[in-house]
Amino acid sequence: MNILIKNVSLDGEIRDIFIKNGTIEEILEHCGKEADKIIDGRDKVALPSLINGHTHAAMTLFRGYADDMQLKNWLEEKIWVLEAKLTEEDVYWGSKLACLEMIKNGITVFNDMYWHWEATARASNDMGIRGLISAVFIDMFDRKKSQEQIEHNIKLFEISEKYKPYVTFTFGPHAIYTVSRESLQWMREFSEAHNILIHMHLSETQEETRFSKEKYGLSPVDFLDSIGVLSDRFIGCHGCWLDEHDCTILKSRKSKLVHVPVSNLKLAVGRVVPHFLMKEHEIPFCFGTDGCASNNHLDIIETMKFASLIAKFFTHNPTMFPAKETFDIATKIAANIFFLGDWEIKVGNSPDIILIDTMRPELVPNFDIYSDIVYASNGYIVDTVICMGKVLMENRQVPGEEEILRHTKKVARALVER
Amino acid sequence: MNILIKNVSLDGEIRDIFIKNGTIEEILEHCGKEADKIIDGRDKVALPSLINGHTHAAMTLFRGYADDMQLKNWLEEKIWVLEAKLTEEDVYWGSKLACLEMIKNGITVFNDMYWHWEATARASNDMGIRGLISAVFIDMFDRKKSQEQIEHNIKLFEISEKYKPYVTFTFGPHAIYTVSRESLQWMREFSEAHNILIHMHLSETQEETRFSKEKYGLSPVDFLDSIGVLSDRFIGCHGCWLDEHDCTILKSRKSKLVHVPVSNLKLAVGRVVPHFLMKEHEIPFCFGTDGCASNNHLDIIETMKFASLIAKFFTHNPTMFPAKETFDIATKIAANIFFLGDWEIKVGNSPDIILIDTMRPELVPNFDIYSDIVYASNGYIVDTVICMGKVLMENRQVPGEEEILRHTKKVARALVER
Repeated sequence: MNILIKNVSLDGEIRDIFIKNGTIEEILEHCGKEADKIIDGRDKVALPSLINGHTHAAMTLFRGYADDMQLKNWLEEKIWVLEAKLTEEDVYWGSKLACLEMIKNGITVFNDMYWHWEATARASNDMGIRGLISAVFIDMFDRKKSQEQIEHNIKLFEISEKYKPYVTFTFGPHAIYTVSRESLQWMREFSEAHNILIHMHLSETQEETRFSKEKYGLSPVDFLDSIGVLSDRFIGCHGCWLDEHDCTILKSRKSKLVHVPVSNLKLAVGRVVPHFLMKEHEIPFCFGTDGCASNNHLDIIETMKFASLIAKFFTHNPTMFPAKETFDIATKIAANIFFLGDWEIKVGNSPDIILIDTMRPELVPNFDIYSDIVYASNGYIVDTVICMGKVLMENRQVPGEEEILRHTKKVARALVER
Repeated sequence: MNILIKNVSLDGEIRDIFIKNGTIEEILEHCGKEADKIIDGRDKVALPSLINGHTHAAMTLFRGYADDMQLKNWLEEKIWVLEAKLTEEDVYWGSKLACLEMIKNGITVFNDMYWHWEATARASNDMGIRGLISAVFIDMFDRKKSQEQIEHNIKLFEISEKYKPYVTFTFGPHAIYTVSRESLQWMREFSEAHNILIHMHLSETQEETRFSKEKYGLSPVDFLDSIGVLSDRFIGCHGCWLDEHDCTILKSRKSKLVHVPVSNLKLAVGRVVPHFLMKEHEIPFCFGTDGCASNNHLDIIETMKFASLIAKFFTHNPTMFPAKETFDIATKIAANIFFLGDWEIKVGNSPDIILIDTMRPELVPNFDIYSDIVYASNGYIVDTVICMGKVLMENRQVPGEEEILRHTKKVARALVER
């Protein structure tokens, strides 16, 4: 499949971009090549696609079902009650809706942790976006559960072969207060042997850090380090309660973080990750939306604005997190974190690509595309999405959209009434 | 002009809404009336329109021109340099772009303060939305300038007659550190005599409160109260540095506040208005976007999410600012603040009306329209806008949009290069 994007703005110049099987073969003022698909790039800007570093895709099913509650009541009375009833089919449709929403917001890669792994893998594969997908691993320090989960994960790792190249299997140990030391150690070994990423909630709440101190006499980071779990394959999400020392350890292990500001504010976890620490200690980090029960919007452009603005505000410094840096975090730095290769639009690279429609009131006068994206807009400014060499959206149309919306609405309502 | 909206969702029921000259005449399961304009309301929700409590419309011209700078450099090197060069024609096009952007985000009322008053009034009138428009009043404690400004404002008040019913003249004393006591006292008297609103920046920065203490020995609120400026016609914007005592005074004078969280975070003014104070003291407040140099997006739905989330976070209480309450603040409470009458969609009322398109991934499964609006979306979910009995947007199309975008882009670039 060849794609030719004509007359598109790229780094301030008007260019033709020729893409063959997902790899950029030519960038010229005028490219005379034939192509299976020609896209008119006038009034549009070409950029690398966005990456969602932390979500629970199928939780779109719970969007708007329960908000504005205390965390404990919300989990115990609403979320866990519904999750106990979830079927494979529910998760498939919830994930499909999430993939649709992400495509419409210019996201082509999502790092996921949820139940019914294969349903999310199928959805990711069917929608044609890249899923780094883990099954929630919880054993509650029970030896039998641990063994079941280990066997289940080995099976999923084998199954995952059939969903390549769209799906990559990852480990999803939920958190240090729900997963035993033994399970974590097993994951570390299997992850080393098979080069598997580990996706984990880390230092999200004060309760978590208290639990860790009480049970292990260590901070969550120190505990994970003590059993060798930290490496450049470790992705810690939230990190609200990290301190200087934790950051030094993460840095020395080349571990990564995902900043999830919208969820942290909405659930009022007391702190957001101190970005200046991540910056000072040069810990690679990217942005995540979290699942739709706690955000409720799978829009990394929105998340960028929250991240940049709260960083400025908390540091009393409006020069913090400038727009271009913020955009890079959500694209090329995120791609490095997930080992996706060079995510810049250059000949020889294979990034996914989005086209932004600049003829929208909120982007005019078009002085600075990065400022306009981060501060003046949201995901709906994305007109076209190309993932792994295929056009997933053009002129904001995604094939099959209406069916996904109508069917998922039914699935979610049936779940609530079940 | 009669409008009939058919089969639209209103408060959870499917209804027909018949509007005659801007007033709702009938709300029925089936309305058999003829109408000049029939709108298909299927898959849509009817709601009162949004109100932008504080902006500087023409500053769309500066969007993305200068961000991520220290406040002082940003003002002195960028914003004031451009503002000194602004012409009436620039402001007309900048305001027109702002009106277009606001219409597309479901906003039909904006409370404005800027230079070249008549240009913004013309734009508001030509675009058909309601502008409460003030001229920036700055005298820098200079008697001659004060007199000039007073004469200028009297003239504008007279001119404003010809822009009715769309435009309402208001006073725009910039702030207590730029306007003399004498000018403020004159505005108070004229405002009493002619029932004119006073729109003022209030306690936005710590410097402002320090200035007030040094010059007058009083907080900004106490100073304004000491010269009788506070009343139910007084609209104070930002209010970041208000304290308990200030709130008691504002409450006793029935004065109003506008909460501008996005700008406060972006410019890192050190605090945002303490909502719990406004709530505790029952001070009516609504939301504002600020101008596009400091937000940069005229989207009250985005502002609602910021307001609700930072309130939850700062109070450590996720039940703060629930979605419905947040929506009401941006609509019916805002309408009360600006004396626009009952803003609910009920027979006999004349609110402006928006239709939300629920067939969008970020709004599915449609469990709760208020949660979906506040937490999962932005202004682009608005499909149709009706203001003062006229349809301004349908199916997201606003007549003349492309010309406004192309022309304003030219105007902004010419301004920068002038």
